[in-house]
Amino acid sequence: MSFRIEKDTMGEVKVPADKLWGAQTERSRNNFKIGAPASMPLEIIYGFAYLKKAAAYTNCELGALPIEKRDLIAQVCDEILEGKHDNQFPLVIWQTGSGTQSNMNVNEVIANRAQQLAGKVVGEGEKVIQPNDDVNKSQSSNDTFPTGMHIAAYKKVVENTIPGVKQLRDTLHKKSEAFKNVVKIGRTHLMDATPLTLGQELSGYVAQLDHGIKALENTLSHLSELALGGTAVGTGLNTPKGYSKRVSEYIAKFTGLPFVTAPNKFEALAAHDALVETHGALKQLAVSLNKIANDVRMMASGPRSGIGEIIIPANEPGSSIMPGKVNPTQCEALTMVCAQVIGNDVAIAVGGMQGHYELNVFKPVMAANVLQSAQLIGDACVSFDINCAAGIEPNHEVITKLLNNSLMLVTALNTKIGYYKAAEIANTAHKNGTTLKEEAINLGYVTAEDYDAWVKPEDMVGGLK
Amino acid sequence: MSFRIEKDTMGEVKVPADKLWGAQTERSRNNFKIGAPASMPLEIIYGFAYLKKAAAYTNCELGALPIEKRDLIAQVCDEILEGKHDNQFPLVIWQTGSGTQSNMNVNEVIANRAQQLAGKVVGEGEKVIQPNDDVNKSQSSNDTFPTGMHIAAYKKVVENTIPGVKQLRDTLHKKSEAFKNVVKIGRTHLMDATPLTLGQELSGYVAQLDHGIKALENTLSHLSELALGGTAVGTGLNTPKGYSKRVSEYIAKFTGLPFVTAPNKFEALAAHDALVETHGALKQLAVSLNKIANDVRMMASGPRSGIGEIIIPANEPGSSIMPGKVNPTQCEALTMVCAQVIGNDVAIAVGGMQGHYELNVFKPVMAANVLQSAQLIGDACVSFDINCAAGIEPNHEVITKLLNNSLMLVTALNTKIGYYKAAEIANTAHKNGTTLKEEAINLGYVTAEDYDAWVKPEDMVGGLK
Amino acid sequence: MSFRIEKDTMGEVKVPADKLWGAQTERSRNNFKIGAPASMPLEIIYGFAYLKKAAAYTNCELGALPIEKRDLIAQVCDEILEGKHDNQFPLVIWQTGSGTQSNMNVNEVIANRAQQLAGKVVGEGEKVIQPNDDVNKSQSSNDTFPTGMHIAAYKKVVENTIPGVKQLRDTLHKKSEAFKNVVKIGRTHLMDATPLTLGQELSGYVAQLDHGIKALENTLSHLSELALGGTAVGTGLNTPKGYSKRVSEYIAKFTGLPFVTAPNKFEALAAHDALVETHGALKQLAVSLNKIANDVRMMASGPRSGIGEIIIPANEPGSSIMPGKVNPTQCEALTMVCAQVIGNDVAIAVGGMQGHYELNVFKPVMAANVLQSAQLIGDACVSFDINCAAGIEPNHEVITKLLNNSLMLVTALNTKIGYYKAAEIANTAHKNGTTLKEEAINLGYVTAEDYDAWVKPEDMVGGLK
Amino acid sequence: MSFRIEKDTMGEVKVPADKLWGAQTERSRNNFKIGAPASMPLEIIYGFAYLKKAAAYTNCELGALPIEKRDLIAQVCDEILEGKHDNQFPLVIWQTGSGTQSNMNVNEVIANRAQQLAGKVVGEGEKVIQPNDDVNKSQSSNDTFPTGMHIAAYKKVVENTIPGVKQLRDTLHKKSEAFKNVVKIGRTHLMDATPLTLGQELSGYVAQLDHGIKALENTLSHLSELALGGTAVGTGLNTPKGYSKRVSEYIAKFTGLPFVTAPNKFEALAAHDALVETHGALKQLAVSLNKIANDVRMMASGPRSGIGEIIIPANEPGSSIMPGKVNPTQCEALTMVCAQVIGNDVAIAVGGMQGHYELNVFKPVMAANVLQSAQLIGDACVSFDINCAAGIEPNHEVITKLLNNSLMLVTALNTKIGYYKAAEIANTAHKNGTTLKEEAINLGYVTAEDYDAWVKPEDMVGGLK
Repeated sequence: MSFRIEKDTMGEVKVPADKLWGAQTERSRNNFKIGAPASMPLEIIYGFAYLKKAAAYTNCELGALPIEKRDLIAQVCDEILEGKHDNQFPLVIWQTGSGTQSNMNVNEVIANRAQQLAGKVVGEGEKVIQPNDDVNKSQSSNDTFPTGMHIAAYKKVVENTIPGVKQLRDTLHKKSEAFKNVVKIGRTHLMDATPLTLGQELSGYVAQLDHGIKALENTLSHLSELALGGTAVGTGLNTPKGYSKRVSEYIAKFTGLPFVTAPNKFEALAAHDALVETHGALKQLAVSLNKIANDVRMMASGPRSGIGEIIIPANEPGSSIMPGKVNPTQCEALTMVCAQVIGNDVAIAVGGMQGHYELNVFKPVMAANVLQSAQLIGDACVSFDINCAAGIEPNHEVITKLLNNSLMLVTALNTKIGYYKAAEIANTAHKNGTTLKEEAINLGYVTAEDYDAWVKPEDMVGGLK
Repeated sequence: MSFRIEKDTMGEVKVPADKLWGAQTERSRNNFKIGAPASMPLEIIYGFAYLKKAAAYTNCELGALPIEKRDLIAQVCDEILEGKHDNQFPLVIWQTGSGTQSNMNVNEVIANRAQQLAGKVVGEGEKVIQPNDDVNKSQSSNDTFPTGMHIAAYKKVVENTIPGVKQLRDTLHKKSEAFKNVVKIGRTHLMDATPLTLGQELSGYVAQLDHGIKALENTLSHLSELALGGTAVGTGLNTPKGYSKRVSEYIAKFTGLPFVTAPNKFEALAAHDALVETHGALKQLAVSLNKIANDVRMMASGPRSGIGEIIIPANEPGSSIMPGKVNPTQCEALTMVCAQVIGNDVAIAVGGMQGHYELNVFKPVMAANVLQSAQLIGDACVSFDINCAAGIEPNHEVITKLLNNSLMLVTALNTKIGYYKAAEIANTAHKNGTTLKEEAINLGYVTAEDYDAWVKPEDMVGGLK
Repeated sequence: MSFRIEKDTMGEVKVPADKLWGAQTERSRNNFKIGAPASMPLEIIYGFAYLKKAAAYTNCELGALPIEKRDLIAQVCDEILEGKHDNQFPLVIWQTGSGTQSNMNVNEVIANRAQQLAGKVVGEGEKVIQPNDDVNKSQSSNDTFPTGMHIAAYKKVVENTIPGVKQLRDTLHKKSEAFKNVVKIGRTHLMDATPLTLGQELSGYVAQLDHGIKALENTLSHLSELALGGTAVGTGLNTPKGYSKRVSEYIAKFTGLPFVTAPNKFEALAAHDALVETHGALKQLAVSLNKIANDVRMMASGPRSGIGEIIIPANEPGSSIMPGKVNPTQCEALTMVCAQVIGNDVAIAVGGMQGHYELNVFKPVMAANVLQSAQLIGDACVSFDINCAAGIEPNHEVITKLLNNSLMLVTALNTKIGYYKAAEIANTAHKNGTTLKEEAINLGYVTAEDYDAWVKPEDMVGGLK
Repeated sequence: MSFRIEKDTMGEVKVPADKLWGAQTERSRNNFKIGAPASMPLEIIYGFAYLKKAAAYTNCELGALPIEKRDLIAQVCDEILEGKHDNQFPLVIWQTGSGTQSNMNVNEVIANRAQQLAGKVVGEGEKVIQPNDDVNKSQSSNDTFPTGMHIAAYKKVVENTIPGVKQLRDTLHKKSEAFKNVVKIGRTHLMDATPLTLGQELSGYVAQLDHGIKALENTLSHLSELALGGTAVGTGLNTPKGYSKRVSEYIAKFTGLPFVTAPNKFEALAAHDALVETHGALKQLAVSLNKIANDVRMMASGPRSGIGEIIIPANEPGSSIMPGKVNPTQCEALTMVCAQVIGNDVAIAVGGMQGHYELNVFKPVMAANVLQSAQLIGDACVSFDINCAAGIEPNHEVITKLLNNSLMLVTALNTKIGYYKAAEIANTAHKNGTTLKEEAINLGYVTAEDYDAWVKPEDMVGGLK
């Protein structure tokens, strides 16, 4: 393996000759051998690419960077965003808590790649573009990393999470409409209760996801605030006048997303409550999705000794030992995702609560957890939708049988004969293994005609459409 | 001890003669000896009082209840809300997960107290008001308990949490303005960094709390949705037409808060994502407050061997063994509250995710945790405000000394001589224990005049007002 | 209301005349109005009573306290342990994080009550016993509070939690033996699987609880280490020689529990990993119990439209609207407890991780959460045992019907005809709604005789006893 | 891209021609596009390799598998363990909750690789080794996956976590000895307290890690229990007599670790409390390490405006904008790891609590979180040790200055003049900005000679060695 020498303010470092990164990246590789290999999410690197380009444009516009440098920097940023340099970012999450070394990794790769684009050899002669003085101009890790993570998280939420959840929500809504007249037994406490329609049941899930999406969207305003322009401690030291507003406009333009400069840069560096807030909504979605997936697998359970009211698609052999077994595997993948997201929420809270003075130094772990959760929820909703929800069908035979057996239809008699007599009917039928109607008549509380007129499951569901 | 006999559908139960509760409350007392004594929050009982009164009014208006019964029920509800029957609710959180027994506790107390108001003796003769058929008319535990907990949580948040947080926020804002020209050293990674003002530092806390309040207010819409009218499974069985809308209007009127009927009752019974959502914002506030309290105690640390940049009030002797010791006790109380709230968030998620079919049966534990967190955050903010924040004063002498020593003032030279030379100056001064200015001149990078012109802390904070 | 004047090093304070507490307790009442009323667990106060008495004996023995003072102090401690002064401890959890004020509360009550015992009037003349110099002699809040909380937690675990869990474990074991020949269908992924016996199923729960008890007992060694003797920072300043060992021996003697002096006092003050460790085991039990309770309610679900394989006791009317409904309420109470304990675990971790230098100041919140969890698990296990587990009975009719329907009996054919042909049989029977035997013969893979010889559920459970 | 056709019981599937996996792996790749690419930890695959080999040996020994098949299977397992097939396992964590598809992935790769080793072409002719009937003989996913995850977790804990923690512990112990006479100020509540030595301070960390290692080791017994032999539901269906004991012995032999067959297979499939238990100890270590790392960075803070009592190595430039800045980056990486581990603990609890009937279907997410935490803690301890702890040195000048300034030295006077007079001295010195000695004499409580004799920091630390 061949090396070249790179330098930083601490001295010389040997770097693999075929890599574009520089001294500080290499130091970090050696100093943080924790859960290797590379784990810093690429989405954050891309966030950096947007902001480095925006900074170059802003610096140039404000007279702080020559146009040739701007264009070289912007060109490399575009290459990074095209995925051309994905293997140039070898660092882990478990580094400096400000993400300084990933900021420098980006600065170094841009500077060295610019050297190539300028027709020079990396590591030879003066750098055409300086990592600190040019690429990092008007910036600090302390404002770039939070900016990069907000860009990454916002994009992930609006491009992956929300569309994924909406796709599932829409399927459930369609199913809810399709099954709006399928009257079935309700269950509370896992016990037989009064009837409702399968469509009503599914409408509850739709309402959960609608609320969840709304809650998630409520958090986007905070997430759209960018720290960039705060530099080291939030005061904006070493930035030209007008920089922070302008650089956010460039980021908004380059990403097509409504980013704004954070009104208070001190908060934006020292606390990452915006991530806490957004992940709070992701956790809420996890709570909702766990409920939904659990219901689906319970209703689909069987095929012969479970509930069996709905049929879900059989996507793969379910067992390596039990032939012919089919399992609710999408429910399982989804609920495992929910468990992870609920755990991630705690990791984020623990990181978020421990900021000190002007800087929170749990940035990488917080950002990585938000990105993982946002990705997993989006992906898992799509997978669950395509491979499970879209194929849900009622098992009418089972549904009808279970409905008609139910003792809780007696509730319809409450308003006719009172709760106590109704209870007596249900208890007697339960004890004797008989039907409600038989016992209602035996006990002399209701005539057969009245029973048939009063106890109609389809009248107990609040009106079929 | 003397007893009377009360009955329910399962038979007779002996109840303490001097208590207003009935058979089901007594069964619950005996069947759930878990963490006794009474732990069901009174706020939920009061929530029930509002809704029982509203149900009575609605039932009456819709022709389902005679006006005399309405008035008796309403009169008892008013007495409950005046706190006259607080000792009549002996049940624990750890009961039926639907809160059925607390619903029945309220029904029974209302019925028996109505008996007294009607001039009869409790336990003698027919009940003037029936617990199930009258007090619980058009209701189920499944829709009353979530309604009661929404009323309780909403009230607690708007009457206790938000005012408490705002009070602290306003004090911090005032202090931020007062100290807007107090230039001090900044710290990132706990290490010396470029300067800012104490006012700027505090403004970050204000921004955190502003965001937190906004996040909390965002959740109120979901929390304002009431399940009442859904009855057993969400279909509204056994309710008169128009009931759910009207009963919510009465609740809104009686509480003076903008409650509405939940658009989807199935969600409102089977999931309590509204509590998850509201508590997510409380957790965010806990994360913010932990950061703020930590900063305050670190900045106030000393008196001689700590940071000592601010002075906080000495409220009590701090040590039983160390004479004259004073501690940041309000910070400690507040951060303990934060730890509890962050834990409660998990309890709520674990409860919220496990709803089954038409009913979530973790209602009491979820509601109790939301109420505890909302109360603790509100109270702790007020306590912290009065006993600590309002008394924060800068220790100018210390602030000035630490500021002028700082090597990070060198950052001002970046744009003049570049990052690398500036680093050399700082490193040399650090190694030699000298000042930046000395080494800047020694190294020949800056003249004394330029140094004085360029390195001015007060120019590094983004403009004093 | 009448008052008397009490003093501390900060000056005079008005205290309710009928109370035994002093100046510092009163200051704390006024300075920490957070989640009032009194929430500091009495178990911790009792822990203090043990240690104050032990300290008095040790100080006396080592020549640092006259025997008359020792006896007065000891006498009050005994009264406290008899519950005679429960209303003298009005403070909340949310106070100084070292619990200093509860230590002083105990010191003050002991001193003032000793005044009475000595025939004097509280608040008049010199104190016979000084709160700091006598009651607190050779002590600091920093070593007394952790000692008090270890005593309280250890006692709670061995007197409440372990016996409660064992009681439930023993019932489940008895049931497991009783049902060892009840062959039933197994379920994996909630789907029908190969058979096992109900006894085997329950034996899994027994194994879980056995492991949980062992895990909990493993933590007792750490919990038995007492901080007392460390005083302010762990060095044992102001203690007589031999004090820490001797005082722990007295505590062991007075409590009858195997307490020892912590080998490292610095750890014992600055970290409360022992609480983290013990609560980790409580959380493990919560995880186990949630699984068990969930299984029980699913197997008991119905009565007509659920699984219905077991019958559990009907303890109370289950619904305020659905007559005759009975619910698995003990399962619900238990799983709500589990949710709380899992949340408490996070509160404790968040507190435990934030110790600074020589002292962790999250003592009260950590201790209160451990005590609550230990109490709730113990109580809930007993409640679940008495009111549910002890009454579990198999519903043989349902069990047999579900067993014989199962397609997964086909697994017995794997070793005879291979997995693929067995799968074909199962899939065909599923598609056609036929029996395995029919399709096994139709497909020509097995004769009727072989089928009957090979597919015997009772041979598939690993040997009935 | 070219493909071959593979089959399973559901039909034909196109598989990339150059891959060894089969139909079910490919189905899983398509059905679970969640957080791709491959995330199932290789450690679990290696665990499978051990157990598949052990099963082949046991089956052969018990007459259920020909020796040629045994050897082919074993040969591929050895290749897998050498890392030769790492890219043949493309599945994600978020699949079937039993890990069935990863079990089948291993079965398929072994069968197809055996085809090659037998000199045949993959996908042509009959399979020499059948994935289900041979490789999976006497097994089910339900017992193999938990076995694989126990092997993986046990190995990770004993090979990575414990050695890593011990390495750090040993360094801290050495430092503790080295600094045993360095008297410094103590701090409680972040405020100045009585003195101790730096060695004593570090000894507290050593005690924390000793307790943590012991707690972790306590969990290994549960983790050493293997589910293998339970097959589908724990009954051991389709295993030869003596299988489960023998197969565990082979696994113990092949891994060199003390694995045993689980005494209760029902627990071993349906609950993963062993993972909950082990991770509980990892969480405890995270709590400890967070405290330690926090202390180190606070004591090292500065260089001019912080505490500055210790010096830690400067490993990299600390800031992209502030020249010469050096940060406690190893502390930050370590505390980020702690945050993640504390979050993972919740994910594991949430998964562990939701087992249903005979199977817990959160296996992959639980195992992955345990493995991540075990790896991160081990790695981070080593990184922190090498790059930080090993280089800790006292800054004697600062330590001495802060020590001598402290007002808390007054505590030494408690036993001479009483707590109240001592407090007066400290309060007066604090108010006047004077020394204790000055005020002690001024107030007339102590002579200069007595002061010098009584107030000696080195006598206040419990005896220097």
